[in-house]
Amino acid sequence: MKSVQFAYRLLPGLKWLKGYTGQDAVSDLIAGVTVGLTVLPQGLAYATLAGLDPQYGLYSAFVGGIIYALIGSCRQVTIGPTALLALMTSRHTGFGLESGPAYAILLCLISGIVEMLMAVLRLGALVDLISLPVTVGFTSATAVIIGTSQLKGLLGLRGGSGSGFVNTMKSVFLNLDKVRYGDFSLGLAAIVILLLLRKLKDLKLSNANKFVKSFLWIVATGRNALIVLISSVIAYKTCQSSDNCPFILTGKVKSGLPDMQLPKFETDILSSNGTEVHQNYANMLGELGPSMIILPIIAVLGNVAISKAFGGAGLSPTRELVALSLSNICGAFFSSIPVTGSFSRSAVNHASGVRTPIGGFYTSALVLLALGLLAPYFQYIPKASLSAVIISAVIFMIEFEVIKPLWRCSRRELLPGAITFIMSLAIGVEIGLLLGVGTDVAFLVYRVARPVLGVSKLSTTHGISYILIRPKHSSLYFPAIEWVRSGISKSLETHGSAPVILDCSNVHEFDFTAARGMGALNKELSSMNVPLFLLKASKEIIVILKESTNADIHTLDNPDDLESLLEQVPDYEPYLQVMVPLVTKLPNSYTDLEHDKRN
Amino acid sequence: MKSVQFAYRLLPGLKWLKGYTGQDAVSDLIAGVTVGLTVLPQGLAYATLAGLDPQYGLYSAFVGGIIYALIGSCRQVTIGPTALLALMTSRHTGFGLESGPAYAILLCLISGIVEMLMAVLRLGALVDLISLPVTVGFTSATAVIIGTSQLKGLLGLRGGSGSGFVNTMKSVFLNLDKVRYGDFSLGLAAIVILLLLRKLKDLKLSNANKFVKSFLWIVATGRNALIVLISSVIAYKTCQSSDNCPFILTGKVKSGLPDMQLPKFETDILSSNGTEVHQNYANMLGELGPSMIILPIIAVLGNVAISKAFGGAGLSPTRELVALSLSNICGAFFSSIPVTGSFSRSAVNHASGVRTPIGGFYTSALVLLALGLLAPYFQYIPKASLSAVIISAVIFMIEFEVIKPLWRCSRRELLPGAITFIMSLAIGVEIGLLLGVGTDVAFLVYRVARPVLGVSKLSTTHGISYILIRPKHSSLYFPAIEWVRSGISKSLETHGSAPVILDCSNVHEFDFTAARGMGALNKELSSMNVPLFLLKASKEIIVILKESTNADIHTLDNPDDLESLLEQVPDYEPYLQVMVPLVTKLPNSYTDLEHDKRN
Repeated sequence: MKSVQFAYRLLPGLKWLKGYTGQDAVSDLIAGVTVGLTVLPQGLAYATLAGLDPQYGLYSAFVGGIIYALIGSCRQVTIGPTALLALMTSRHTGFGLESGPAYAILLCLISGIVEMLMAVLRLGALVDLISLPVTVGFTSATAVIIGTSQLKGLLGLRGGSGSGFVNTMKSVFLNLDKVRYGDFSLGLAAIVILLLLRKLKDLKLSNANKFVKSFLWIVATGRNALIVLISSVIAYKTCQSSDNCPFILTGKVKSGLPDMQLPKFETDILSSNGTEVHQNYANMLGELGPSMIILPIIAVLGNVAISKAFGGAGLSPTRELVALSLSNICGAFFSSIPVTGSFSRSAVNHASGVRTPIGGFYTSALVLLALGLLAPYFQYIPKASLSAVIISAVIFMIEFEVIKPLWRCSRRELLPGAITFIMSLAIGVEIGLLLGVGTDVAFLVYRVARPVLGVSKLSTTHGISYILIRPKHSSLYFPAIEWVRSGISKSLETHGSAPVILDCSNVHEFDFTAARGMGALNKELSSMNVPLFLLKASKEIIVILKESTNADIHTLDNPDDLESLLEQVPDYEPYLQVMVPLVTKLPNSYTDLEHDKRN
Repeated sequence: MKSVQFAYRLLPGLKWLKGYTGQDAVSDLIAGVTVGLTVLPQGLAYATLAGLDPQYGLYSAFVGGIIYALIGSCRQVTIGPTALLALMTSRHTGFGLESGPAYAILLCLISGIVEMLMAVLRLGALVDLISLPVTVGFTSATAVIIGTSQLKGLLGLRGGSGSGFVNTMKSVFLNLDKVRYGDFSLGLAAIVILLLLRKLKDLKLSNANKFVKSFLWIVATGRNALIVLISSVIAYKTCQSSDNCPFILTGKVKSGLPDMQLPKFETDILSSNGTEVHQNYANMLGELGPSMIILPIIAVLGNVAISKAFGGAGLSPTRELVALSLSNICGAFFSSIPVTGSFSRSAVNHASGVRTPIGGFYTSALVLLALGLLAPYFQYIPKASLSAVIISAVIFMIEFEVIKPLWRCSRRELLPGAITFIMSLAIGVEIGLLLGVGTDVAFLVYRVARPVLGVSKLSTTHGISYILIRPKHSSLYFPAIEWVRSGISKSLETHGSAPVILDCSNVHEFDFTAARGMGALNKELSSMNVPLFLLKASKEIIVILKESTNADIHTLDNPDDLESLLEQVPDYEPYLQVMVPLVTKLPNSYTDLEHDKRN
């Protein structure tokens, strides 16, 4: 029994086999094959998007399924090539010679290693720093960039997909006279049909029989494979007979499985003046640069989003991270480009009724079969139809719906989203993402640095007036202390000289710099003969204050103790002279105090 | 009268002239001359530290005094060259030909412009981001770097001061056999005397007469000028008669005032292979790079620290910033290197009994006089004595005292300080400062992202159990929501299934991402038949929740309302079956709940 438990711990996926019924197997088989039919055209298309030969998309599509079946915990997740990661990979594949695959595969390996480090160091939480507006801005920008990068294929324009949104658009407009109408009409027709077929699923056919319903569902789900199949048949028929082929075709796809081999740590590139330049390990890492960090974070973000959408909070984030990491590390030995969970294919998997992650096995088997048997036929796939597949997939990644509620309830959150979107288009997705997160972080720091202070002039039951300062925040850290100091100075100008009580009852976080600032404030107020008291300061605050300053700052637990404290200091006696004894009470909550106008 | 008020607003310094008595003038004259006697040797030394000819230190020492007298508001502040800014400038002055002064003066102009922008955009508050441990780490590292950079001068080793701590140390150790004992003994003697003279002020001479006391005070305050004067006389005597001069001398200092001219926007440098390379405006800005931002921030930090130390919180930070900015902008037209408030000279000013910022006029006058008349004599100043002046000034910038209290009360704050110190020495002061601030900011974000949750199982007065979750923080922003979600999941595992009440009474800050997460949590808990309620949620929270999610999250104002709310939902009826009615009360404050172990 012990060895079985050990095996379970090592490969948690084995537990799915316990009580695996024939019915489970059939469900998983159907779902796995359906996902496979989606990943075949997508893989070919995404590899081209990444700037590589189409077969690399298929090389990337089978390792993840097997690894995830063994280690993953969410039955719907399918790991493989995605448009986003392909786009990010494409930055490093344009240096000519054999360097494209070398860079892509090395990036895959490094992503896997970085993901493993993130799992070990528990850094998966870094994705928490990416807020919803930034996510929306990022995915929308990515969708726009991917969409425009496919315009060339759709219009039958030759040449690479260009780098970046601006360059691609410029290149398309400059070459509009070279549009090939064969490709363009095929691509446009394919997009229209794909979008219509997508709607098929939502069709309410209450009185149709079960067979028709199933048929419609299969057509809708397998629409990518269907369109690619039909357009290939058309291309095969028209292009075999005449030299004048109206479509640009995918071209030879290398047949057979990829060799299992170590990723290459050196390669040759073509320099700008056409000479071959050798790149060693360090050169390659230098070229990959920040992608080595940002790509894994984006991969993890995608994967987390999917497993959260389908699996709820019950999943172990670490296990998911390890599964993703191993998919990339092992994938790199089979010439894979960076992979992560695909939202669209996971949705297909879910809709196809998958029961366990073993479905991924069947997907992988289908991809391997295609590599072995179908590869020769892939050369007839028109590029325009692959572009259509990509465009009709990414078009739904552009999210405008979130803008309206944000505008209505929290406008300032539009800023990080807009910065991410615009900068991603203008400069690049990595820079856009970093700037968006930077904007969000700057706001968080701003809030810590500028706590709202509730200021009110009150009197004790003995009628002694005092100024009560209540920070609305639970922290009083170094960036805030100068603000608090000047706030107190201002309140003295407004309310006149009176003992100042700083309410620390809700201040749980404090640091050395803040304590020093408080000491300086105390000194300053003393020189103006204004006593300063801390109300309900926690032990931590008092310890830090004592260590950091020599100043003796008085504390009290109840404003009514003010009188006896003031009596002890001769300088402060004037404050004890009260004209009319007043009875006022401490406000019960923050909301009683001056309202925060910034919210 | 109107024109007078306008003049006051334009030049607030004019107000000092109102009622300016003869006594004020005498006090300001004495203080101004004393500061002048300090800035003369310091200016010569700091210019050398910056990698320039000595006269540039004097060019930098007179504009600030005049500008600050007109605009500044703190009588003690004296603006001029400082060791820190000289060190930061020295990074850009080592490219040969006439490029050194060109870079330094351009940096001065740009610093002034950036400071003006900081004043206009109210970015002066950026210095709030520099915590005390980082400040200490930074100034200590700077002191060490400046100190070691003077070792060469002190030991009589020829050659530039080298770049960075590591290189300088290496170069000194490799050249130990070339130490010139004349310079070394002079320098060492000068340091010892300077440190002793510094102590002179603290001497308690209760029974000495007033004249002796004043004499000692003058000697102690003017010690730098005195040492430089004496060592120059010695050098003059020994070096004029023989060719075998035992000291390396400062060499010719250009006599006369600097020309008033536009800073140069182009220059020539020597490339590494010895050819002249022309640098245009863009090249020069590229070389200055991040210094254009970091140097002004450091300058402002220094200035703020001084005006705070002497002027209290009553000063207008914007006015100070404008004064500093104009000192640099105008200075750049008189060949000044970047300037800021000097702590040591401001202290001298204070101790000399300055009454108004007009004292700065007298300092400037003395510097101009020295440029006109004394410059020919400056060439006899031994470099070793200038090094001694610098070393005995910066040695007190190394602060170890802060480590002990930090260790005792807030150890985690040692980290940003240590990172700043080590990285400043190892890589450079700008990088060190940025990494230190980055560490502090990362901690702030970490605290926002990981709020402490107080979890307790309680019962209403009707005996219905519920789980109360109380965030100890006042904010619930996007980085925290996943953490809260998993915290609630865990508390359900620990305490068993029960209605969950999230206490929002102290949550004042909330955002869209957090609201979406809350919606997802609500959905997830619903699917587990666990009801979720928000206790005392503010209007803002409810509005954002409504806009961001379709989910209907229940709110309540008192846990005792739980019963009636549960009755409305049939699914939740099981929670109403209570065995024994219990009476427990809500805890009154956070401290009643599970104690935060992280503090």
